[in-house]
Amino acid sequence: MGKIKVGILGATGSVGQRFVQLLEGHPWFEFGALFASERSAGKRYKEVAKWFLPYEMPEEAAETVVKSMDEIGASDNDVAIMFSALPGPVASKVEKSCAQAGYVVSSNVAVHRMEKDVPLVIPEVNADHLALIEVQKSMRGWDGFIITNPNCSAIMLTLSLKPLMGYGIKEVRVSTMQAVSGAGYEGVPSMAILDNVIPFIDREEDKMESEPRKILGTLEGSEVKNAQFTVCASCHRVMVMDGHTEAVWVKFEESVSVDEVKKAFKNFSSDLKTPFAPEKPIILREERNRPQPKLDRDAGSGMSVSVGRVREGRMKDEIKYIVMGHNTIRGAAGASIVNAEVLVQRGYI
Amino acid sequence: MGKIKVGILGATGSVGQRFVQLLEGHPWFEFGALFASERSAGKRYKEVAKWFLPYEMPEEAAETVVKSMDEIGASDNDVAIMFSALPGPVASKVEKSCAQAGYVVSSNVAVHRMEKDVPLVIPEVNADHLALIEVQKSMRGWDGFIITNPNCSAIMLTLSLKPLMGYGIKEVRVSTMQAVSGAGYEGVPSMAILDNVIPFIDREEDKMESEPRKILGTLEGSEVKNAQFTVCASCHRVMVMDGHTEAVWVKFEESVSVDEVKKAFKNFSSDLKTPFAPEKPIILREERNRPQPKLDRDAGSGMSVSVGRVREGRMKDEIKYIVMGHNTIRGAAGASIVNAEVLVQRGYI
Amino acid sequence: MGKIKVGILGATGSVGQRFVQLLEGHPWFEFGALFASERSAGKRYKEVAKWFLPYEMPEEAAETVVKSMDEIGASDNDVAIMFSALPGPVASKVEKSCAQAGYVVSSNVAVHRMEKDVPLVIPEVNADHLALIEVQKSMRGWDGFIITNPNCSAIMLTLSLKPLMGYGIKEVRVSTMQAVSGAGYEGVPSMAILDNVIPFIDREEDKMESEPRKILGTLEGSEVKNAQFTVCASCHRVMVMDGHTEAVWVKFEESVSVDEVKKAFKNFSSDLKTPFAPEKPIILREERNRPQPKLDRDAGSGMSVSVGRVREGRMKDEIKYIVMGHNTIRGAAGASIVNAEVLVQRGYI
Amino acid sequence: MGKIKVGILGATGSVGQRFVQLLEGHPWFEFGALFASERSAGKRYKEVAKWFLPYEMPEEAAETVVKSMDEIGASDNDVAIMFSALPGPVASKVEKSCAQAGYVVSSNVAVHRMEKDVPLVIPEVNADHLALIEVQKSMRGWDGFIITNPNCSAIMLTLSLKPLMGYGIKEVRVSTMQAVSGAGYEGVPSMAILDNVIPFIDREEDKMESEPRKILGTLEGSEVKNAQFTVCASCHRVMVMDGHTEAVWVKFEESVSVDEVKKAFKNFSSDLKTPFAPEKPIILREERNRPQPKLDRDAGSGMSVSVGRVREGRMKDEIKYIVMGHNTIRGAAGASIVNAEVLVQRGYI
Repeated sequence: MGKIKVGILGATGSVGQRFVQLLEGHPWFEFGALFASERSAGKRYKEVAKWFLPYEMPEEAAETVVKSMDEIGASDNDVAIMFSALPGPVASKVEKSCAQAGYVVSSNVAVHRMEKDVPLVIPEVNADHLALIEVQKSMRGWDGFIITNPNCSAIMLTLSLKPLMGYGIKEVRVSTMQAVSGAGYEGVPSMAILDNVIPFIDREEDKMESEPRKILGTLEGSEVKNAQFTVCASCHRVMVMDGHTEAVWVKFEESVSVDEVKKAFKNFSSDLKTPFAPEKPIILREERNRPQPKLDRDAGSGMSVSVGRVREGRMKDEIKYIVMGHNTIRGAAGASIVNAEVLVQRGYI
Repeated sequence: MGKIKVGILGATGSVGQRFVQLLEGHPWFEFGALFASERSAGKRYKEVAKWFLPYEMPEEAAETVVKSMDEIGASDNDVAIMFSALPGPVASKVEKSCAQAGYVVSSNVAVHRMEKDVPLVIPEVNADHLALIEVQKSMRGWDGFIITNPNCSAIMLTLSLKPLMGYGIKEVRVSTMQAVSGAGYEGVPSMAILDNVIPFIDREEDKMESEPRKILGTLEGSEVKNAQFTVCASCHRVMVMDGHTEAVWVKFEESVSVDEVKKAFKNFSSDLKTPFAPEKPIILREERNRPQPKLDRDAGSGMSVSVGRVREGRMKDEIKYIVMGHNTIRGAAGASIVNAEVLVQRGYI
Repeated sequence: MGKIKVGILGATGSVGQRFVQLLEGHPWFEFGALFASERSAGKRYKEVAKWFLPYEMPEEAAETVVKSMDEIGASDNDVAIMFSALPGPVASKVEKSCAQAGYVVSSNVAVHRMEKDVPLVIPEVNADHLALIEVQKSMRGWDGFIITNPNCSAIMLTLSLKPLMGYGIKEVRVSTMQAVSGAGYEGVPSMAILDNVIPFIDREEDKMESEPRKILGTLEGSEVKNAQFTVCASCHRVMVMDGHTEAVWVKFEESVSVDEVKKAFKNFSSDLKTPFAPEKPIILREERNRPQPKLDRDAGSGMSVSVGRVREGRMKDEIKYIVMGHNTIRGAAGASIVNAEVLVQRGYI
Repeated sequence: MGKIKVGILGATGSVGQRFVQLLEGHPWFEFGALFASERSAGKRYKEVAKWFLPYEMPEEAAETVVKSMDEIGASDNDVAIMFSALPGPVASKVEKSCAQAGYVVSSNVAVHRMEKDVPLVIPEVNADHLALIEVQKSMRGWDGFIITNPNCSAIMLTLSLKPLMGYGIKEVRVSTMQAVSGAGYEGVPSMAILDNVIPFIDREEDKMESEPRKILGTLEGSEVKNAQFTVCASCHRVMVMDGHTEAVWVKFEESVSVDEVKKAFKNFSSDLKTPFAPEKPIILREERNRPQPKLDRDAGSGMSVSVGRVREGRMKDEIKYIVMGHNTIRGAAGASIVNAEVLVQRGYI
């Protein structure tokens, strides 16, 4: 059986390049089409992408002629899945018309994430939410559909909260130290971040405070009921290339020991058996100064998150720990890819 | 009237160099003696200090012959104040024998900070705690005495909490992004921190969790009763030269508005009129992405802390904000100097 | 006598901001007008400039309403000098029409530097070239005129070559390690330069290879005859905020000793007595690991260049050394300001 | 046939860790013993090595009990090859006694490199110099022998010069921008290099000026006659983790075109077929801003060097270009390993 053809929407940007790099040699998927803005259309990918990844550009992609978004349609009938790394403003319109036209859209973009009939999925956490696909298709009358993965920072946090859900999470506070790659290639000027911390990332705190509650919510009938804890986030940019580090405080309904939390992290496993699903979605580090972005971001080929420094808080029933993950792999392109893999595995594609 | 002669204990290290730099041209103090380890003794300061500050080494210090700690005594009778930037292990013994010998010791070292009869002082916050000096002198039978300033991260936090004390602080959570200069010149190898975050600083969380409660405590008779709130800290090193940035959550006894908090910051002033006391100990930034270490660390000649991003938390009665200050000026050498100035002003010297 | 009113063309960019910062409190000049693109016109400077310097924005500038370039003309008759930090493409037209309209233009822009009747001046090196002003005015029939300062990297190199001219320079090779601020605020994305070197700077090598020969050339009648040596440059960007470091090889006509070169550097002085002219245009460092950008860029308030590591080359009659200077002060805005000061001093304004 | 057992001298340091990492799963070699200072002896490797590489520590090494150098001898009879990453002062004595005791020592240390009977080898360049082994053994009466690889910066340069030798090289000038990993884990404090360039590396220029001449020299009878060109180097440290970038000027006996040089680089190939020998020892980049350490250091698994920006110099018969390579792989541990492989291949082991 042949591979499934995939398209990449927004293929020249920072996350788009990650899609291109990660999809090279994928056992199930192959490049069908690369889409970018009008400006790049008609030129070969290698002519328009300012490639910045420390790997050679995949040859197949390099020679592909980039199409404009207007060209999506009949001609790409052999493409089944569209991965979306579009800038917010154009994403909504393009993703919708793709879904309407029958494509499966696996999107890394924020714009549809919180819509009631759009699955917001980390497959190790809430693959059951994919049931929303049927709701979405029937409500919207689309042939295709849209699924989304969370914001990069929210993914790391949510993955780490999942094994703790059984203990009754009440409040979560999280302070992030985020990598510059999260802002796109030209997002953070070196003059802004060199020898500096920027204690602000536009709309990031909102996403971190809302998305985990949907993902960890429960599917009841045709909708997801949000999880009942509260998240409060403070988001900051630091001079790191890849890897978001997050200091987390979790207050529980009642006392939970450090050992229980560690055990929960250690025992958390995934039964997904798809190419991008890491064997261990969560890796517990016992060293006193780990996880660190430079040392741990590539764990599980960038698809595992690492937790460490699990310790008692000073407040009642509170635990604090560090979680870190690769923001453009586990937190973006890799997240959309593993979502698409699960769709294939479960027969949605 | 002549200037007061001061000595610097541990003059060649990172904080020691800051003392040397900041004391140049001080209107009240002048170099009396520079002390360092046996290894450096007998050589001129310029021969033994690996000077790394972006200022020329003060000429007077450069030519001073460094003494060993054993030489403290009769020969330095004209020195009145000893500033201490000693490494922990030697600090205790040397500081005590200095105090016993009649010197006033203004120490940046942690070792004596939490002792009951040792003032731990940020003069804009708790200058009244200097009353412990008499307790200390009479209890220990010393001619001199020791006063201390807090840990660098604790100073920023504590200064920012002071104006909020009237609203009833219940819980404080703080996540730090600390500069490499806080670890001393050779403390953080470039290979460790380049493109990285190190989510651990030895004993830092303990200090942040205990010192603010003493400083913001109330002097009752001859002792300080700790403030009644709890602090829980998570401490991290980032690739910044100078300036500790801290994300703070404050839970109050009852609801306090963002405007009230901002007003409290804005109205906080200092009536100290000494050379190193900043006109505004706290500067409120209204920009959405400030304070930043690179832009704000030198505010008030490095002696002001900057706060910003004051916003409502998601939890009940909680406010979050950012505080940032220069860790080797406001947070170390400058803190010891302003403490000594206040001693002079109040007649202790 | 009142101060001279000055305008800044391109006031919101990286060099434009340096002009604003450096001109605050200038003893001879005061802000007359700030010009920027159409987009910023009509708004106050503080609303449109993404201020990134570690100083508070000068209040006077902050409140100034920015004008568009089209508004230059009659209304600014009280402005005498225009400092230009315009982007290349617009600079030519605007600078010319300013000069035609009677303004003195002191430009940091490359576009007119190599024109025969335009002085390219480092006043400590070739103030006599200002005689070209008369040539320019008469040839072009302008009331005003344009003078220029060299490219940032060329300034450091040329200043260091000046004291060696007497020994017969034959060949110069130079390898640069240039700061990110030289590319403008958004010029170098952090993703491009973090943990990296970029061994290419557009058109930089050309400038370094041509400008020094004009500056060190001799004025013969109404034109400058280029100096007779050859320069060959290799230009590279490194992760430094400010300060260009250059490794230089100078081959002489005949043997010159290290001591002679050091002496030439040490004895080089300036008789300019204007506010921005540094007392010592060249500072010789004898330490084996200096000059360094972080430690030496602010020497002489950023207007001195530092040389060091003067040593014999392995080739015949060759000396190698390091020169370093602040690229946006000595190498850009400060260079244009000191040029304007010398114009005032010599009666051109 | 079983694998050959290897020992690592100085296994806990920066280069030592690279040996451990690179040798994991090597098809020909396996860990026999790890040696470090007295302090580490008797403990398991994972307890004493401050592991800093972004890979998990190889399990086999992790559990190995580290030995002190005094224990080298009878007990390690099954070890055939000693890779040496010892600090200079101890290297000489230990390496010699190893060679005397019959071990083959493949050393990354400078101390023996320039000795007449010690091969200094880059196998793609001068594998024929291995003939010195017999000279060494017979002159010194040793059972084993020492071979060495060049200094990290010298390797990149020398590899790039090799294909140009046919054109008659006369003079080489080289300016380096070297990574911090070259100085060892604690070699460059972050406070020294953050936002800085250090234009000095102890003894580096000497090595770059002497080693290439020996490597590119010709074996005549029992000795190597140095190549006849001169090298003049200026060495600088920049804030890059791995990858030394070098700007090179080569003056030829007579005119050589850019195209000829490019062709020479492109056609340079290696007939070594050992595990660590890269298919292409030299990769020519045609982009105008390559090679860059971040993008190109891992080319050929870190064993290829990348050249680019080949262009005409301004001086007669001169070409300039950039060469870049991974300093701890191609430039250190990988260099020693490929040397040992060639020894095996050619029957020396």
